[in-house]
Parts: sequence; structure tokens; C-alpha cells
Amino acid sequence: MARTPRLTRSPARELRLGVKLRVIYADTDQMGVVYHGTYARYLEAARVEFMRDAGQTYADVEAAGYALPLTDLQISYLSPARYDDILSVMVGVVEIGYARLILGYHVLVAPGDRKGLGQPLTIAFAETCHCCIARADGRPARFPGPLRAALANLAPEGDD
Amino acid sequence: MARTPRLTRSPARELRLGVKLRVIYADTDQMGVVYHGTYARYLEAARVEFMRDAGQTYADVEAAGYALPLTDLQISYLSPARYDDILSVMVGVVEIGYARLILGYHVLVAPGDRKGLGQPLTIAFAETCHCCIARADGRPARFPGPLRAALANLAPEGDD
Amino acid sequence: MARTPRLTRSPARELRLGVKLRVIYADTDQMGVVYHGTYARYLEAARVEFMRDAGQTYADVEAAGYALPLTDLQISYLSPARYDDILSVMVGVVEIGYARLILGYHVLVAPGDRKGLGQPLTIAFAETCHCCIARADGRPARFPGPLRAALANLAPEGDD
Amino acid sequence: MARTPRLTRSPARELRLGVKLRVIYADTDQMGVVYHGTYARYLEAARVEFMRDAGQTYADVEAAGYALPLTDLQISYLSPARYDDILSVMVGVVEIGYARLILGYHVLVAPGDRKGLGQPLTIAFAETCHCCIARADGRPARFPGPLRAALANLAPEGDD
Repeated sequence: MARTPRLTRSPARELRLGVKLRVIYADTDQMGVVYHGTYARYLEAARVEFMRDAGQTYADVEAAGYALPLTDLQISYLSPARYDDILSVMVGVVEIGYARLILGYHVLVAPGDRKGLGQPLTIAFAETCHCCIARADGRPARFPGPLRAALANLAPEGDD
Repeated sequence: MARTPRLTRSPARELRLGVKLRVIYADTDQMGVVYHGTYARYLEAARVEFMRDAGQTYADVEAAGYALPLTDLQISYLSPARYDDILSVMVGVVEIGYARLILGYHVLVAPGDRKGLGQPLTIAFAETCHCCIARADGRPARFPGPLRAALANLAPEGDD
Repeated sequence: MARTPRLTRSPARELRLGVKLRVIYADTDQMGVVYHGTYARYLEAARVEFMRDAGQTYADVEAAGYALPLTDLQISYLSPARYDDILSVMVGVVEIGYARLILGYHVLVAPGDRKGLGQPLTIAFAETCHCCIARADGRPARFPGPLRAALANLAPEGDD
Repeated sequence: MARTPRLTRSPARELRLGVKLRVIYADTDQMGVVYHGTYARYLEAARVEFMRDAGQTYADVEAAGYALPLTDLQISYLSPARYDDILSVMVGVVEIGYARLILGYHVLVAPGDRKGLGQPLTIAFAETCHCCIARADGRPARFPGPLRAALANLAPEGDD
């Protein structure tokens, strides 16, 4: 019987700001907070900017004949995000292997990004696992060189 | 450094069909398969029917003064779901505690629900963790009697 | 200066039930009702079942080398839909031309599909316009025969 | 029989930039372009920044006891938006009446915001109609003074 270990801290040791984004009505549900499923798009938005920042856009990866489908997703929700909050989505490399990449996320509201908030508020921690595949045959493939170099550079200890 | 343990089998021992639903364009992304974030709504649709089936709608739970916010979500994607597939989303109770409920899910395509598919195809396994709270003060509360009874009845061994 | 004429009745004279679907949390926003953007997926879900019912799935259309991208969307919201409502999405052909198809929609809650509702409640009227294109070159193309026949059969007077 | 008049130019004479936002996978569908339903959230994101820019956040409006539900939506799609495009969503006041507000939108890709694009590319035109209601009783109410002033200031001729 499986059991999800709750993420109570960031899965990645070093994090960079991926994006800041404002919560809109489309993101919320009738409980008056952000719907839990909305976070998948927040994480994706942060991930693509994180990669762009590392010098490799996801569009580049695809153009080079690869894809990085997400194979596993885990999110732990610590405090609800609300309409009009500005969320900071931090991203970091947890691990990069032959064909596997694990990223960690910390979603938070910074002071000033919610009315009356005096200190950073953690909203969620998350982790995504990706497999590098060759688009030609859909099979796992070693990360292309430039992407590996870019990501390893962002990994805490360039582990392989 | 956290690491998501990949779900390679159903987190719940006993599963019931929550819903069958057909994949539409809205659910897909440009990789030509269902977007990973879409599964949150598939799981929710199955969960509410599972509870209804157990004799307690989520609307009943809210009317009784409680809410069951989702605190943790984990999904492992084993095979991509495609446009026009009919997905069967199975649900089961993994564990029910004082104020905590863990549900497990198995998303699959049954034979006949994808053109040319001869045997069941596992799409994903998932787990959601929920906390029962009193809506009056937002604090954790013991599951209301009828809901507990309904869910315990569906749990593999009525564990508490 | 353009001005949207509000849809106060069904754009199509004859309507069939496309789908019945239950409103979930994912569909709602913090105003406590269904988010206006969610209706695009309700209309799509109804449209594909309407076509299937007519004997031509959208997957068939694609397999035959065509696509029917949506070129115009109009929705008028008459009454909010709520969590746990079962919505009936009715669909009808407004007009079918050389390469253009206009569909009309009536979204309603039938008696019994919302607690305490004694008579049908209109939620929204909508209209979508589609262009038939050949996938090979992306240019407008005459509707393939079987699809035209199927749709004309559903059009009020088989107008062309 | 109703018929949507296609929007072939901006419904508003004067437009301001609401937001720039980048298209992510979550926004696309398997046709390889942005799903038509995704635009509802693009328009909302632009609308809230447009109001904020005018000096009145939507959160202010709600705090003052009002709401501005969307009653009608019309979108005409002129050219598909693609993954990784940066969209500029322009907004303008078409008309402001006693309790009714009509906004117009122009969604475009500016040169430099899609690889190889040399001149602005119109993606879509849209119009949304909103009704000002008092949250206490849900009935139409005259726009609160500060909001009216802010919006009239942005309307082409301060029409009433």
C-alpha cells in the first residue's frame, strides 16, 4: 500500500525564481482559493522560464528532436493561495541522470504580494519527474549535450 | 533531498469505478496526448461519484458544515491517454484516520474504449490526501459520522 | 463600434441532447458558480457527441484528412450554473455551407438535476462557427461527403 | 435564427496593453495551437490589469460590495497562437452604461514575440459584456463612483 510522503520542504536545495504570476478568477474554485489542479500550469510556467534562463528553451529541446514528458507529479499544499495574490514560483534541479530529470518547486507569496502580508508565506512544495525521449521513436534518450550542460550547471552539485 | 516514489501499482487495494469519461480536445496539449494537469479534474470527477455511490455527496458534506480540502496530490503517468479515449477512473480508500482521508486511483482504458485496444491499458496511478475541516473555523475536525461510516465501509479493512 | 447581440434564445431551431455532465469544483470559481470560460469545454463535449450521434466522429473527420477549427464563439450567460448541477447541453445545426458550419447550443438544468428545481432552467445560449479545412494545406475545403450528409440531415432544412 | 457577426476589427476604438503572457503547453491542444477555450483566461488576465491600471482593482470592486459578472462573451479567431508565443492582450472600453460595461480586446503577437515574425500578427478580437450587481442582493446596481470615473476616463468619449 503506497503512501505519499508529504513534502514539507523544498525538494531542491538551490532554487531560482521561475515566474511571478497573479492569481485570476479562472484559477480559483468555489472554496474561494486556487483550485489544486491549477498548480500544474503554475509549475509548467515556472519550469519553461527556468530552462530559458539556463539558456535552453523547451522549444529548442523539441527542435533538436527531443521531448521531456512529465512522468510523475507530486504537490503538497501548505496554505491556500487566493485571488489577486502574486505567486512566486521557485524552481531547482533535484537530480539529473542519463535520461531522467527531477525538478523541485517552492510556491510562495512574498511580502507585499498579498495585502497585509508581512513575511513570506509558503503555499506549496512540488516535484516533477521528466524523461528525456527522442521524438523519432519515443524511446528514452540521453539528454542532449547543451541541455545537460545547462541543467547540470543549475544542479546543486552537478550530480549525474 | 526528497524524491517522489513512483506509483507503479494502485495505492488502494480495492477499487470501484468512479466515472467513465471521454477525452476531448480541451484535455489535450500539442504533444497530442492528455495534458498532465488535466488529470486533477479526472480524479475529482471520479472522487465525487465514488462518494455519491457511498451514500454521501460532497455537497452533503459541505451542507453539514465540513470541507475536505486536498492537501497532497501524487500522479504517476504510465501511458499517454489520447483524444477520444474513454477513460475509466477507479477509486478506492487507502486509509481513513481521525481527520485524514487518503484515496487511491487507477486510470485505465478498457478494451473497446480505444480503437484497436485488445486489453486494459493502465494510464496512471494516483493518490490524494484530504483533511476534514470544520467550515466554521477552518480547523481539522473528526469526520462526520455518516461520512466516516460510508467511507470505512469502502476501506479495505475499515482501518482507523 | 461592434456590439455583441445578446443571445436570448437558441440559435438553432432544432436541438438534440449532446451530453449531460455534472459540474465539479474544477469548473467553478470563487464567485461560487461555474467560471464563464469553462463553458467552452461543455460545448465541445456536447459537439463531439452530437457528431458521433450523427454518425461521424470528429476523429473520423481528422482521419479523412480534414479539421474543423472553431473560428467564432459566442456565449450569453442567462443564469449561473452551480456545483453539483447536472447540465444538459443541447446542440443543433444553424447553418451548413460550402466550408462553414454554424452550431447552436442551449445549456440548461432539467428538473431533478438541481435540488429543488421544479422546471427547466436556462443557463446559457451559445453559437460556434467552424471552418472545414484540409489538413494537408490548411486551406478551406468543401465538407467531406459523409460529414455533410450527416450534418445536413440534422440541419433544420438542409440549407446550403 | 441568430448569427454571430464575426469580429474583424477591434470592438473598442482605443486600446491599452492589459498583459503580455507567454503561451505554455497547458494552453494548447493537439491541433498544435492554443485551445479556443483558453482565451477566456487570457482576456480575464488582461481585464484585471486594465482595471488596476485605471486605478480600481477588481478586488476593490468586490470589497466595495459589488461584482461584475460576465454576461456575454464573443471571440473571433483570426490566426492561431502557438506554443512559446508571447501574446499582447490589448483592452479598451466599448461602452459604459448605468449598470453595463462592454470591453473590447485585440490579441496579437508583436514582432520579436514569435521567432521570425516581422510584423504584428492579429490572433483574435473579442468582446465581453459585464453587469454591475450589488453583492448583497445580486441585483443590477449603478457602477460605484470611483469605478465609473476610472472607466469613463478610459472610454473613447466618456459616453454614458
